[in-house]
Amino acid sequence: MHSGNIFTSIPDSQDRETFEQIIQDKNVRIERIVSRGQTSPESGWYDQDQGEWIILLKGGAVITFEDGSEVKLSAGDYTNLPAHTRHRVSWTDPGTETIWLAVHY
Amino acid sequence: MHSGNIFTSIPDSQDRETFEQIIQDKNVRIERIVSRGQTSPESGWYDQDQGEWIILLKGGAVITFEDGSEVKLSAGDYTNLPAHTRHRVSWTDPGTETIWLAVHY
Repeated sequence: MHSGNIFTSIPDSQDRETFEQIIQDKNVRIERIVSRGQTSPESGWYDQDQGEWIILLKGGAVITFEDGSEVKLSAGDYTNLPAHTRHRVSWTDPGTETIWLAVHY
Repeated sequence: MHSGNIFTSIPDSQDRETFEQIIQDKNVRIERIVSRGQTSPESGWYDQDQGEWIILLKGGAVITFEDGSEVKLSAGDYTNLPAHTRHRVSWTDPGTETIWLAVHY
């Protein structure tokens, strides 16, 4: 049934982001991402073939786009990243876990 | 960009559930559902042609399945409803807004 709680069973890795798949279907992939102050990727940009809709559920983050614009995200904030929207995560809150839900479609 | 905050701009309708579409793509539909003590459907069962992944982000709810089993959901709880999983929302917290995110795929 893929049941659980998005805020619990957090992987205890302190030194890297973690990506956990919740749903993998032919048309959609849902994952939980937990960041702890990391930015990613360290160099370059995410440039994805699929659209990605993200919602930040705990913590805080900033996404920077190739044109220099930024979106700051707090708990409950969501945004849509159409395919090939070049972006990077330029900041995540170093003082807490940042929990994201991402829907790749 | 389909940006927003899942916890804000709550429709002020007090007497019915509200369903708001956030993303509609050929393969996926993401919506916010706000319940205020309602159960649904009023009679019978939901029986959907698509899979539905849901996460409850505020409030509380109980989903009942055709075999009589129940799942109680609190903030952060998620579950997957494969296509044609007959179910109904048998309770939502009457004391607060219950906010759901649903991914139909």
